[in-house]
Order: sequence, then C-alpha cells, then structure tokens
Amino acid sequence: MGKSITHKIIEKHLVSGEMVAGQEVGLRIDQTLTQDATGTMAWLQFEAIGIGEVRTDLSVSYVDHNTLQMGFRNPDDHRYLRTVAAKSGAVFSPAGTGICHQLHLENFAKPGATLIGSDSHTPTAGGIGSMAMGAGGLSVALAMAGEAYFIPMPKVVKVELTGELTGWAAGKDVILELLRRLTVKGGVGKVFEYAGPGVAALSVPDRATITNMGAELGATTSIFPSDDKTKFFLEKMGRGEDFVELIADADAEYDEVIEINLSELEPLVAQPHMPDQVCKVKELAGKKIDQCAIGSCTNSSYSDLKNTAQILSGKMTPAETDLMISPGSKQVMKMLAREGLIEPLLDAGARLLECSCGPCIGMGGSPVSAGVSVRTFNRNFEGRSGTQDGQVYLASAQTAARLALDGEFTDPATWGPAPERVELPEDVPSIRDLFVFPPADKSAVEILRGPNIVALEDFDKLSDTVEAKVLLKVEDNITTDHILPAGAEITALRSNIPAISQYIFSRVDEGFVGRMKEHGTGVILGGDNYGQGSSREHAALGPRHLGVKAVIVKSLARIHRANLVNFGILPLLLVDPADYDALSEGDDLIIPANAMTPGGTIDITTGSGKSVTVTNDLTKKELEIIQSGGLLNAVREGQA
Amino acid sequence: MGKSITHKIIEKHLVSGEMVAGQEVGLRIDQTLTQDATGTMAWLQFEAIGIGEVRTDLSVSYVDHNTLQMGFRNPDDHRYLRTVAAKSGAVFSPAGTGICHQLHLENFAKPGATLIGSDSHTPTAGGIGSMAMGAGGLSVALAMAGEAYFIPMPKVVKVELTGELTGWAAGKDVILELLRRLTVKGGVGKVFEYAGPGVAALSVPDRATITNMGAELGATTSIFPSDDKTKFFLEKMGRGEDFVELIADADAEYDEVIEINLSELEPLVAQPHMPDQVCKVKELAGKKIDQCAIGSCTNSSYSDLKNTAQILSGKMTPAETDLMISPGSKQVMKMLAREGLIEPLLDAGARLLECSCGPCIGMGGSPVSAGVSVRTFNRNFEGRSGTQDGQVYLASAQTAARLALDGEFTDPATWGPAPERVELPEDVPSIRDLFVFPPADKSAVEILRGPNIVALEDFDKLSDTVEAKVLLKVEDNITTDHILPAGAEITALRSNIPAISQYIFSRVDEGFVGRMKEHGTGVILGGDNYGQGSSREHAALGPRHLGVKAVIVKSLARIHRANLVNFGILPLLLVDPADYDALSEGDDLIIPANAMTPGGTIDITTGSGKSVTVTNDLTKKELEIIQSGGLLNAVREGQA
Repeated sequence: MGKSITHKIIEKHLVSGEMVAGQEVGLRIDQTLTQDATGTMAWLQFEAIGIGEVRTDLSVSYVDHNTLQMGFRNPDDHRYLRTVAAKSGAVFSPAGTGICHQLHLENFAKPGATLIGSDSHTPTAGGIGSMAMGAGGLSVALAMAGEAYFIPMPKVVKVELTGELTGWAAGKDVILELLRRLTVKGGVGKVFEYAGPGVAALSVPDRATITNMGAELGATTSIFPSDDKTKFFLEKMGRGEDFVELIADADAEYDEVIEINLSELEPLVAQPHMPDQVCKVKELAGKKIDQCAIGSCTNSSYSDLKNTAQILSGKMTPAETDLMISPGSKQVMKMLAREGLIEPLLDAGARLLECSCGPCIGMGGSPVSAGVSVRTFNRNFEGRSGTQDGQVYLASAQTAARLALDGEFTDPATWGPAPERVELPEDVPSIRDLFVFPPADKSAVEILRGPNIVALEDFDKLSDTVEAKVLLKVEDNITTDHILPAGAEITALRSNIPAISQYIFSRVDEGFVGRMKEHGTGVILGGDNYGQGSSREHAALGPRHLGVKAVIVKSLARIHRANLVNFGILPLLLVDPADYDALSEGDDLIIPANAMTPGGTIDITTGSGKSVTVTNDLTKKELEIIQSGGLLNAVREGQA
Repeated sequence: MGKSITHKIIEKHLVSGEMVAGQEVGLRIDQTLTQDATGTMAWLQFEAIGIGEVRTDLSVSYVDHNTLQMGFRNPDDHRYLRTVAAKSGAVFSPAGTGICHQLHLENFAKPGATLIGSDSHTPTAGGIGSMAMGAGGLSVALAMAGEAYFIPMPKVVKVELTGELTGWAAGKDVILELLRRLTVKGGVGKVFEYAGPGVAALSVPDRATITNMGAELGATTSIFPSDDKTKFFLEKMGRGEDFVELIADADAEYDEVIEINLSELEPLVAQPHMPDQVCKVKELAGKKIDQCAIGSCTNSSYSDLKNTAQILSGKMTPAETDLMISPGSKQVMKMLAREGLIEPLLDAGARLLECSCGPCIGMGGSPVSAGVSVRTFNRNFEGRSGTQDGQVYLASAQTAARLALDGEFTDPATWGPAPERVELPEDVPSIRDLFVFPPADKSAVEILRGPNIVALEDFDKLSDTVEAKVLLKVEDNITTDHILPAGAEITALRSNIPAISQYIFSRVDEGFVGRMKEHGTGVILGGDNYGQGSSREHAALGPRHLGVKAVIVKSLARIHRANLVNFGILPLLLVDPADYDALSEGDDLIIPANAMTPGGTIDITTGSGKSVTVTNDLTKKELEIIQSGGLLNAVREGQA
C-alpha cells in the first residue's frame, strides 16, 4: 500500500507507538521554533529541565509578538530570550526582523523535517513539505531537550485540488472554502494533505497561507508536497541544498478525500466572529469598511505585498478607511524597497508598520468602536482586535487591498482585471546576517532576566479525590483568547504566571478569578471544541495557578488538551453531552480521580446527589503525567 | 532703532498691548496646529465656543501621538478629529502621515506668520522664520475662533552664531550647548533669535532641530531668519511662493546676546534625567548602550535619516544594542526609498517604525530595565521612556547612529570621517494629497464621537476665600510628565477628563488622587520651574477636576502657567522662597482670593497660625478669568 506524505514523514521520525489513527505516537523532532509571547515560558521550562544545550538540529527563538515595548517587560523578555538562546545553542531572531512563520519558511524550514513550535500557526512550514505542528511551550521545551513529541496518530485527509485559481481568487480563498465546508472543529485529529493537479500551479506563499490557516480547522497540521515549486522557492532563498522531493505515492491511501476545484473559487471572506463564518465577498456589497489591515503570518509575503502595491498603485484609499500594512519580514521589505514598491503604498495612504505580528495579535491597530475591519489575518475572534465590539472580517491580501480603495464591500465583478500572480524576483536578498547565531564557546554567556520574569512554581500531585465547585460554565468553541485575552497589556505578563493569572477569563466573566481565590479550587464546565485557537499554554498554566483541578467538556481542541495534561489539569469528557445542561455554576463536585483509567469512565457526584459520567481520551502516560501534577514533575520523576 | 525679527513679526500681528518686555500683548494668529493627544480636548473646546468654522488662515489637525491604537479609544479619537476638522474647515493629517512639526515645516509653515500649536515643540517652525509657539489647547481653540493669543511680551535674546559646524557636530549640538549653558529654566520669558555669520551654513532641518528643542530652555519660542537657505527649502517643498525674506535690521537691539562658535562644537549628549545635563560624548566613553532610537520631531528629517543610513551602511549593530528608527514623515520615507536608503537601515539591524512620535512620547520602544538608551529626542525626563529606571541620553542622529554601531559610548575622535552634510535631492516628492482638506460644503459632514470622548464639564467660579489643605509638596523642575504621565495607556484617555484625572501625579505620589477625593479640595506646593515640558493642558484640567484650587510655587513654566489660568487654578508665587520650607503636606490654608490684585501680595494663613506671603504675575484679565472659573466661562460671559 502506498504512503501519504504524512505517513512517510511520521514513519521516518517514529520513536514509539504504531501508525494507527488515534493511537499515541512519539516523534523525533528535527526543528523547533518559539516566539516571545509563549517563548519565555518555554525557555524557562527548558532551563528547568537542566540539560544545557538544545539537542535538535535547529531551534530558533523569534521575537515578533511583543514588539510594542510599552515598559520594561517586553524588552526584558527579549533580552532574556537572546541570552538564553546564546547560552543554549539556539538561533535568535530580534524584534523587527519579521514574523516567526514567515521567517522560518524563508530561512530554515525543510521539506520532510519535523518542526514543532509554541505557536498554533507553526503549520505554515507545511507549505514547503515540513511536518510542522503547533504545541504547548513545555512540549517544545522537551523537544529542545531531545525528547520525543507525542500526539495521537492523526487521520490523513487528502485535499484533492483541481483546476487553477483565476481572477481575484487567492490561496487564502482555498482555506476559507475549507473552513466554510468543515467549520473550526472539522479538522480535529486530522492532517490535511494537499494533492492533485491543482497543486502545481500554487506558489509556496499561497501554499503556506493555506497550511497556516489550517490551524483554524483544528487540524493537527496541513502539508503540501515538496515539488518543483518548492525547489524554486528554496533556491531563491539561497537554500537549494535543503530541497528534497516529497510526494505521496500514487496509490497512497487516505482516511478521507475532499475535492476543491480551484477554478470555481471566488473571493471569500470570514465574517465576525469565527474563521468559519465564510461567505462570498459580493454578498456583503454595500457594507462600509472602517479599516483594512494587511499582514500577519497568513498573508505578509512578498507576493501578497507586491500584489497589494500593484492594486494600490496610483490610487488612494478614502479618508474614512484606514489601511495598515505589516510586512512579514525584512526580506519582504527589502524586496519591496528594491522594486520601488514602498512609495505606492505610502501614496495610497497606507500606514507602514514594523515587520511583526502587530494588529493580528491585538498589538495595536484596533478599529474604531463597532468598526468594520477587513484583515488578511487568520482569526477574527470577538475582541481579539482590541476593540470588543469590532467587526473583523478575514480575507486575502488582494481582496483587502481592493476593498480598502472602495471603502466598502463591493462585488469583485466590478474590480476589473486582477493583478498578475507574483513570482520571486531574479535576485532575492538574504537577511541571514540579521539572525544571532549562538557562539561556539557559550561559557561566557550570561543569561539576563528582568523583574517580570518569574520562574515556574512547583505544582502538587493530583489528589485521589478532587472536591471542587463548578466555578464557570461556558459555551461551545471557547478559544484560548477567551481563556486568556491577547493585547499588549496582558501579553506583556507572559513571563509572570502569578500576574497574568489575574486575567484568566476576565473578558468572559469578571468574577471568575475572584471566585477561584475565594474557593482555592474549582472546575470549569465547557461545551464542544473547548480551547481552540492560539497555542498559549498560559490558558492552562493560569487556571492551574488559580487552582482549577479539572475541565469537564463535550470536546477539546488538540493543543489546549495537551497543555491541560502538561500542567496537570484533568481533561474530562462528558459521556452524555446532555449532562452539560444538568450541571451549573456553583455545583459541588466529587471526582474520584484515583478511579480513572485511560479511556475509562468515572461517575462524578454532585452536592445534590446527582451523578454524571465522564470519560477521557488520555493515554496511560498522559494520565500518569496528570497524577504527577504535570509534565515537569513527571520528567523530574523519570516517568515521562 | 532697528528691529529684531521677533519685533517685526509681533508688531505686524499686534492687536493689543505694547511691545514692552513683560507686558501682555495680544497677537493675531495666522495658523494653528493641534495633535491628537492634546487636540481632542482643543477641538471639544472649539466646539464649545460655538462659532462653526475656523477663522485662521490655516488650521491643521495632526494625528501622530496615539498611533498604537490599543483599543477603540485612539481610533475613535482620530475619527472625531477627522470629522470635526472637515466640519470646521480645518486640514486633517491622518495617522502615519508623520509627526506634526515635521509635516508642518515641510508643508504649511510660513516665514513671518504666527503659529500656535497645542504642543510645546511647535517652535520647530521657527526654523523657517515662523513665530511659532506652544500653547494650551484652549488657547489654540480660541485662536481657531479668531481670538488673539495673549502672552507677556518676551525679551529677545540674540544668539550670535559664528564659525561653522565641523566633523560630527550637528544642529542638535547647538541647542545642547545652549541647554548646557542656560539650563531648562534659562529661557523663560524669552525668544531666542538666531543671527550672525554662522546662520547661513545651517540647513533648515538643522535650524528646525534647534528651534524645536528651544522649548527645553523654557523659551517662549526660537526663530531663525528667513534667507536663501529658507528659500531653497521652500522651493524644494514646492512652496516657493510662501517665501519672504525676513532678517533682523542691522542695528536691531536685543535684551541679551549669547555667542556660540559653531566651529568649537563637538558631539554632546544630555544625560539622565534632564535635557540640560549636558556633557561631551567622549566623557562617557566605555558606557554600554542597550538601545538607540532615532526619530521624533527633533531629529527625523531626511537629512538626519540619510546621514543615519550613510553611517550604518554596510555595518551592523551588535546584538546587545537595539536600534529603532521612526521617520518624521512619509515625505522623508519616500525620499529614503527612492535613494535606496531603506535597505542599509534594515541590513544594519534597525527596526523601522511607523512615521509618528513613537518612543519619544512613550508609545512603545521602552528600553530594558535600567537600560541605557541614546535617543535623538528632546526630553529625557525620568520614566518618560516607559521604563521607570531607564537611563535616557539625548544626542544628534549622527551621534546616535554611530554609537549604535559601537554598542557603547565612544570618543568621537575614533569615529573616522563624518558623513557629508545632506542637501535635499533634485526632486522632492510631495505628499500633499495625503492630507484631508475640508469640503467646500460642510453641511453633510457628521461629527463622529466614541464612548471615550467626554464633553468638558462646567467649572465653578472662584470662591472669595479658598480653604484647602496642602495635599502634595513637590520639588523643583516638576514636569507635566510628572503631573500627568505619558505612555499609551494614560494618553488614550486624553479625551476623557474624569478618567485621566485618576492618573494625576500617579508616578510621584500614588496617594495624591485618593487624598484629593477624600478632601474634595486641595493645594499643590511646588518649587522652581513648576510645569515645564509638554504643553498638555490635562496637567491643569486633571487637577482642576480633582478639586485643586491653587498651586503655590517658587516659579512657573510658561505654558503650564497659562493652562492654570485657563482652567481657573490660582498660580501663586512665594515672595520669600524660604517659605517653601515652612509649608508642609497636610497644612490647612486660608487664601483670601478676593483680596488678590494683579501683581499684588496676599497673606495666606495656615492652620497653625503661620502666615506666608504670596504674589502673582497675573494681568487684570487673567485674574478675571480665574475668578470666572476659567477661560471658557469668561468667554461665555464676554469677559475675555
């Protein structure tokens, strides 16, 4: 039987388990990446493991989230990351160099390599055939320490692409179409592997946009073949030697097949407040637009911004519509500068921001009150823009640029000819010298910290019986943005768990932290797809710090599930989803934790004498980790 | 008797008073500018006056301070400013277009014209011979309404420049030298008028740097002649028709003369935490530098950044030293792009920020804890960088760029040849289309507000007798940054006096606001030069909102004094400075306000029976304004 790309890579990196969907497999990890919002915690954990130098082929520490630097916290974090990288043998990418995923794609990602990153959009590197997954910071720290990365063996979905993108349709519209069909929980436990005759015509940046935003499907990752387009891209990046061909066998078997005819796609847009609320752009014609924002790890490549410049050239946005552009990397910026493409952006009224995540992660760029903002980003969760009642729409760079000129949604049929699809120029400038490579002799490197960088606390083992109240009841599709909001003020505290914990669920229920403090322990009750979105492990660490012992939900998102395990919070699944209605905030629960077995059921009794049956999808090892009080305890005890 | 430039311009604009130093003169104002941190309040005041359209030759509303937009407040403010400008016949400059003073110099300032701006660095326009003064927002609002601007007739100081700048010395070093000699209170009540053979060789950007930072002397303003260099600059800006020659008569008389031999200047730097703590760069050799920042209204012109690019070209900053660059305007950015000067900045590791005030006003870019930051800005007040223990040094762009490469202070003798002094290129691109000019028919314009934009409250008349406690005692040289800190979080509240008042003196004494709330009224006791620095009238409005009735000080800075008058706070001067020591926080004071006369003394009695004599330097009109409860009340009553 032929193999998919996914199976080929997993097979080559398998250190434990069998490649049977749903069973746990352990993978050797070739590369890791961290960014500064999750990375300080990952590096503190790496230090706590105490092995000195990283044992991966390559580990890169990027600074791209907290680049505003309002106060000492961000720059202290950056300095810590720079010095701990030098001490530990990792590469450091300073603030302003660009966005981790864009930079990694351009400079370091390799076809066939495994990569995990403490950021949910790590699958961007799947655009060149890397098996790239988002993970909690602790998993990344362990991978840096040479440990395997454990995941349930995913199902592999073949996304058969036929036809060719035409007119104003872009790579972004491919993933928006998938989100429209499958929803934000349609990809859980699956790898989306792209294949078919439509692949050949898609550029690497288009592919990377698609694999990037595959994260919004809840997928384990997404991956494209490594082919002639990949070779062309890597050669342009000065990395021809990193190319290996990687395609699925002709007779490869897949768990599912989905077909998308690229020729039928037209400009799409995800409406507030979920990436799967997709409709055609023309359906919104007439709606006024207050702001457009082009950038983020999804759409900030040279081709996105060159198309943007072409669309804007010689025209101006109306005064009512603000346009912001954040290039994905200094390499992108340099190519724009060389080709005279900065000036048309400025002349159109665009605001040119630093090469960083910027408005995508709520670091500035908020829209006006109740403002309509069209963004090329990957998430439009409520409030993530920094304006709680902001109405964020997600679209391609071409769509956002064109709409910025119109100042309102218009029918693409009125847009005239689309700009040509962009190829990389003859000479692509390198920015390799901007990375800080570790010194050969690391003995003189001093790791510098700041007053906001607080070492991880020790957590207790799990009790035999957990007695706690339900202190919060939330609905389906709760994101890690709900659990721990983004934005500069809060994200500046990412290296300080006691401080950041005060913001847990602060925008969902202001009283939650107070109730946790009053009771000391608590349980969260949730619906389907609990913990989707960003990989931030603070969404597990913060609740753990506050005393959350268990979450009881209908279903869990992949990375957050792993983070709960890593920090010793019980991830319990309702056997009968109807029991969600039977439980309420304030209920006293008695959870017989010592009766738990992998995949087994236990009965939780409530103060009023009711009983609710829950199960789990934990492996034996995961259950032991939780019983130890979390993965760091387990590692110290030699159990993981 | 011949006339100085200052006398010529004042004479031409005099609507009341006599040109006798110290006596109040009323001036017709040709142009105004506002920015978004002070401007929303100024425009709310303009609306409160109720005259519809501006009556100046030109009023421009710039957005350059609150450009980070972390939440709805900033963008709502910008939208308000855009729509109120359109409704009122003012020009609007959107966020990202550039810094108000740089833009005004390039696009609108005129030799011989009077200009007031709600920003203390408005004197930048003095670089081309405009009589340009910083003022409180209410004064600007009144000028927009066609009212005269009242100031004490300043003394005129002739700054006789001889010789020529050589080597690494720059325009910045001229003003640093003056600050070294005269201190931050050396310019109070004075206009610094530049003259002598050294003037001809100074470019307009160098002149503008000097007049800009004349604000740090406490001066009323600074001004250069309008000569061939001015003509050249205006022609390059496409504004040759705005040129008029303006030079002092050969036999002009001055109140004082200071001589500076430009040939003797070498690179200087102002040390923490005052702009007058000036020493030679070489004296600091060996001190490590964590950050350099190039930009701000003082040093972000084309010539500053071209020199920066030349210095950085082909070199890299060390990993330990972060370099940030904020171009002053999109025109500057366009010129850099056209000449291929963006790439050398990026290649050197510099972070390219948006064209805005940025780190200068604490909008991001903070240094690490206790970090040494060399900035081309105009102020280095403690904490203004956003890092309370940050050590900020002020220097020229050339010095900052060179030090960024060294990563530490070094002796300029080791720097090698200085870059050539930059002239404007043959073709200077225009950005005139980026400004939003008001429509001819304003009837359809709707002024849009947001929930954070709160109309001004009404203030009570002054009581005959003020009984209040001293609730704060502070030292000499208190800045408006001390009174109301900068930074994005607080500055986002500039349109909301009740909200922003909670931060009054918050970094000096956390208990002050609480004490004011407890007692309802209070008095502030200060030393010399109270209220220096930024023109923010919130430093008077906030205390007024909290119930501050009087400040009793040794001496007052000019703009803050006017703001106190405008908002009805008694500015009382200790006759015997030694009485400062006799008064303490908590003292009960009885102030016989109804006994006050312009320039007269009154005796304040304290609870313990002591008596302290104070005077004032108020005109009759100013005293009436305070008695009315502030200028808006007085205008409504027809008294001002």
